[in-house]
Amino acid sequence: MTEPGDGFGVFTDRAIVAMRVNGELRDLAHRLEPGDRVSAVAIDSPDGLDILRHSTAHVLAQAVQSLHPQATLGIGPPVTDGFYYDFGVDSPFTVDDFGPLQKAMERIIRQGQRFQRRVVTEAEARAELADEPYKLELIGLKGGVGDSSDGESVEVGGAELTIYDNVDAKTGEVYWKDLCRGPHLPSTRMIGNGWALTRVAAAYWRGSEKNPQLQRIYGTAWASKDALREHQSRLEEAAKRDHRKLGAELDLFSFPTEIGSGMSVWHPRGGIVRLEMEQHAMRRNREAGYSYVYTPHITKSALFEQSGHLTNYADSMFPPMTLDVVHDEAGEVVSPGQDYYLKPMNCPFHILIYRERPRSYRELPLRYSEFGAVYRNEHSGALHGLTRVRGLTMDDAHLFVRPDQLEVEVASTLELVLSMLRDFGLTDFYLELSTRDDVKDKWLGDDEMWQTTTEALRRVAVASGLELVDDPGGAAFYGPKISVQARDAIGRTWQLSTVQIDPNLPERFDLEYTAPDGSRQRPIMIHRALLGSMERFFAILLEHYAGAFPAWLAPEQVVGIPVAEEFADYLTDVIDQLRARGVRAHVDDSDDRMPKKIRTHTKAKVPYLLIAGEDDRAQGAVSFRFRDGTQLNGVPVADAIERITGAIERRSQEL
Amino acid sequence: MTEPGDGFGVFTDRAIVAMRVNGELRDLAHRLEPGDRVSAVAIDSPDGLDILRHSTAHVLAQAVQSLHPQATLGIGPPVTDGFYYDFGVDSPFTVDDFGPLQKAMERIIRQGQRFQRRVVTEAEARAELADEPYKLELIGLKGGVGDSSDGESVEVGGAELTIYDNVDAKTGEVYWKDLCRGPHLPSTRMIGNGWALTRVAAAYWRGSEKNPQLQRIYGTAWASKDALREHQSRLEEAAKRDHRKLGAELDLFSFPTEIGSGMSVWHPRGGIVRLEMEQHAMRRNREAGYSYVYTPHITKSALFEQSGHLTNYADSMFPPMTLDVVHDEAGEVVSPGQDYYLKPMNCPFHILIYRERPRSYRELPLRYSEFGAVYRNEHSGALHGLTRVRGLTMDDAHLFVRPDQLEVEVASTLELVLSMLRDFGLTDFYLELSTRDDVKDKWLGDDEMWQTTTEALRRVAVASGLELVDDPGGAAFYGPKISVQARDAIGRTWQLSTVQIDPNLPERFDLEYTAPDGSRQRPIMIHRALLGSMERFFAILLEHYAGAFPAWLAPEQVVGIPVAEEFADYLTDVIDQLRARGVRAHVDDSDDRMPKKIRTHTKAKVPYLLIAGEDDRAQGAVSFRFRDGTQLNGVPVADAIERITGAIERRSQEL
Repeated sequence: MTEPGDGFGVFTDRAIVAMRVNGELRDLAHRLEPGDRVSAVAIDSPDGLDILRHSTAHVLAQAVQSLHPQATLGIGPPVTDGFYYDFGVDSPFTVDDFGPLQKAMERIIRQGQRFQRRVVTEAEARAELADEPYKLELIGLKGGVGDSSDGESVEVGGAELTIYDNVDAKTGEVYWKDLCRGPHLPSTRMIGNGWALTRVAAAYWRGSEKNPQLQRIYGTAWASKDALREHQSRLEEAAKRDHRKLGAELDLFSFPTEIGSGMSVWHPRGGIVRLEMEQHAMRRNREAGYSYVYTPHITKSALFEQSGHLTNYADSMFPPMTLDVVHDEAGEVVSPGQDYYLKPMNCPFHILIYRERPRSYRELPLRYSEFGAVYRNEHSGALHGLTRVRGLTMDDAHLFVRPDQLEVEVASTLELVLSMLRDFGLTDFYLELSTRDDVKDKWLGDDEMWQTTTEALRRVAVASGLELVDDPGGAAFYGPKISVQARDAIGRTWQLSTVQIDPNLPERFDLEYTAPDGSRQRPIMIHRALLGSMERFFAILLEHYAGAFPAWLAPEQVVGIPVAEEFADYLTDVIDQLRARGVRAHVDDSDDRMPKKIRTHTKAKVPYLLIAGEDDRAQGAVSFRFRDGTQLNGVPVADAIERITGAIERRSQEL
Repeated sequence: MTEPGDGFGVFTDRAIVAMRVNGELRDLAHRLEPGDRVSAVAIDSPDGLDILRHSTAHVLAQAVQSLHPQATLGIGPPVTDGFYYDFGVDSPFTVDDFGPLQKAMERIIRQGQRFQRRVVTEAEARAELADEPYKLELIGLKGGVGDSSDGESVEVGGAELTIYDNVDAKTGEVYWKDLCRGPHLPSTRMIGNGWALTRVAAAYWRGSEKNPQLQRIYGTAWASKDALREHQSRLEEAAKRDHRKLGAELDLFSFPTEIGSGMSVWHPRGGIVRLEMEQHAMRRNREAGYSYVYTPHITKSALFEQSGHLTNYADSMFPPMTLDVVHDEAGEVVSPGQDYYLKPMNCPFHILIYRERPRSYRELPLRYSEFGAVYRNEHSGALHGLTRVRGLTMDDAHLFVRPDQLEVEVASTLELVLSMLRDFGLTDFYLELSTRDDVKDKWLGDDEMWQTTTEALRRVAVASGLELVDDPGGAAFYGPKISVQARDAIGRTWQLSTVQIDPNLPERFDLEYTAPDGSRQRPIMIHRALLGSMERFFAILLEHYAGAFPAWLAPEQVVGIPVAEEFADYLTDVIDQLRARGVRAHVDDSDDRMPKKIRTHTKAKVPYLLIAGEDDRAQGAVSFRFRDGTQLNGVPVADAIERITGAIERRSQEL
């Protein structure tokens, strides 16, 4: 779709939108030097999509200023799946503005305007953008100009100021300009028709409540109309599965405003699912040699001082509860009292159990597990249903191991993690190995520690046979980790369990064990969450299954529906047999008619509806009605019971 | 033991030490009026023992002042099982002082001094007690004179001041005197020899740290030497069973100082017992129609304002965590921020679940249960091991019932409570029915409510067939309750479960359900704890069993001990069969010799030691060694497995 005469002769494939030169992204018009290392950036690659979205944001801004000349420009970066642009305007935008704006954008795109980069001095930039107060402010930030995805301007190498002009491809007439570091598509025409404006929101300039409020318009952009449609279908499917919506519809949990945002209560129907999940995780832990421990939810501040949480993590912690300030007779504080903190993590408590008495090498590995409820003071803006909360329960565990046990323990932990996730119906995984990078002073511990632990993790990860993605620089400051990423039923990826090596806390708490030679040695800790937090994992499962849990997890497993009142006794007998086997089952003996009952319980996603009428009773049988509307008639009662209890016991994904 | 000529002619039985006249306790020398209602107080009755102990305290004080003339007198009341007296002295007492003091006391007792009551004016009292600064202070307290068991002076009816003289029974010579409201034994001789001094402690005058520190001497006193010896044996037995001692010896739990007093961590061996207890309670709850719910540990303050906890219970709550105070530009607080509180009770959270949607009469009763961890800011002096803590987990439940369901639900709740306690090996109960008394304005709700709920509770209590003790005035301000009192293996009584009627919180939270006629009705709540707190119940069980838990609760259920190394494989095979059946079992393959292993695991109170040697292997058998040292040889392996798994499954008290 590049025009003849556009003059970028390097690549001819029309799906190529930019290039990477010596590691930096550049416009296709960038002048290459001998010896440059160059690679092509295709429009449907992650970099290409970022550039497409960034250019679409420019076109949006041009359209806004053409229709609202008084609008001033904030920033307009690409974001996940799309872009936004912030504007200073007198009255907020609404979705009613989208029609005219999209028309104006289509016109600009059809026109095939060229994105043209131009280096300017600060004085030139100030003169040209004299009517753009926010852009002037960005110029004023020493060395910092440009868009970035977090809404803050970021430093540009060499502090070179650049303006992108949108110019007529033939006449060179400048239609619009923006202070921007680029790169951009060669032409607006390459944006094509795989985009849409999606929503408006208010946003503070540079993210601070002290600054003026701007109006943000969000859009999405893709390499083709088909890709856009796929994205929109995924969104619709995800909206249907939204765990907050399902949680209310299925009466599973809620967030009472009286308690405070980000803190959930679990209703009986949600509680039973969570209990099944926890019981299963406990069983698997026990079989894998973990001990269950209990620790309190609060502690004196000294514990979190020693662990480093109050130094490094205090912003995410709830403020202290201050006990017993003591005053003297003149009213002066003579003792500051004792601060108690709600725990954001369980690790230091498990360490205290380890340290309760001297340990011998024979006792290791020690594996402590606990469903530990922790509290984190997340910003209310970051909260999202059960996936981002203030109160969460981790299915936490800490292993205390000898260095020679590290690799074996990591391997068996990873095996347990994957096996557990499979029990819950997740089967599509890849691993991420987070290691340190070359930044000096950022990492604690010596080279040998990093090398041996990283190599051990890599061997374990490779041995798993799963796809392995490297994440250099993603390690914790004290050690490397493996994360398990799982894809759900609609292809979304969730980071779930992590296995984290930690030589740091054993050092801070001076943990020891006695080696065979009598010397004191330091154990290594492994932090491990099987499912992450119960809240988040439950939300992921709820969306994965779209509320239709497999039988073993379903809140109500079986509902009996007599064809008519006269078959109620017969069916009650069958249901009682199931209840005696521990199945959550009841007969719907309400006054509703049968079709209404079927609708009600199908909507409630009950896995098995058992129906009984004349034929069934005569044959000593029942009829199955499943959630997908299919039916299976005349199943002998014993077979029906076997099928149901068997599926529950095997935790089968099939009904 | 009363002397001829003592002159109290009303009673002749020497075991009678005082009398109750028109409801008031009086000396036997009290002059009766026509029409007085009189009953006798025997020395071994609760009132009689109080008087005995109070008189012994006087004798102690007389002895102290005879040996330490400079000692001044604080107060000297009876307490549970004994008495104390506080003294102002220059140097603290030690147990080395007990010999001379006890000798002096014996002398006074043998002398048979008479306790003689005398009413005095305030001026007389001040003159007579001019050398007793603390007594003078008591006289100065308007209307308040006398000893009391809580160490504070209490009001005496009519503010009549009385002095008790210890006088020679024959000559009338006054040996010693004390400001005291009485009553006392007729003669020191009646104290007999069932007493002992037990310990010394420092104590602030009138319980305040601002006052001088006095020296307190504690003693115990009983109606006979035999009763004293029984008491001392009980103490020794209780000390042997002290859960704090057993908790450390058996590696069950600890109280790390880093966390703060009154908060426990549970080690793997304690954790597994607690988990078994919780799992069993959950199973019983589920079978009884309870739903399990989950709620957070903190909430915004408004919830506890509405529930009334912040008005009535704030002193027992941890102080708030204050979030996000907002200041204006001048630094003034424009928003006080949000206070979050750690929950001291679970009730308001369960109420929010009830209130999450409209309820129909058809849904009731709703029964929500939760192991809810709550935190209470107990004074550190009140803390005691796991029985009085700051952090505890209640096996809590709240029932929301229609008035017509109340009695049936209370009955089935009580049945569940008693059955659960029996599961845990407690079998000796009585009930306490706490009702309102005649004090006006103290009780919320109308007469009819009190009458119908109290009658319902009484009918349920009587129908249980258990001993029923009335506790008038012991109700909560909003409704009556039944408490279950259980006697443990050494005869101590523990208040365990309570079933509490509450029409108040439904009122405060405006809870409703729709009645069959469409009208809105208010449900009644029942608060119920099966076991109380897990911490306290665990401590009680630990002491009840003296650490020797029945097999189903024991942390380690079976340990295999081969007679020699060559039988290890054979025994491992047996142990593996047990493990496959879910039994907590392992083979002790340490280097210790067999007798040492038997000692180790017997001391750890492992219920079953399985021993195998030549004969056992030849016969396909094992030998049992029990905690009491008895042995059972040559048990075929299948029978051994059956015996062990059977005892665990049946939760048998026998091994």
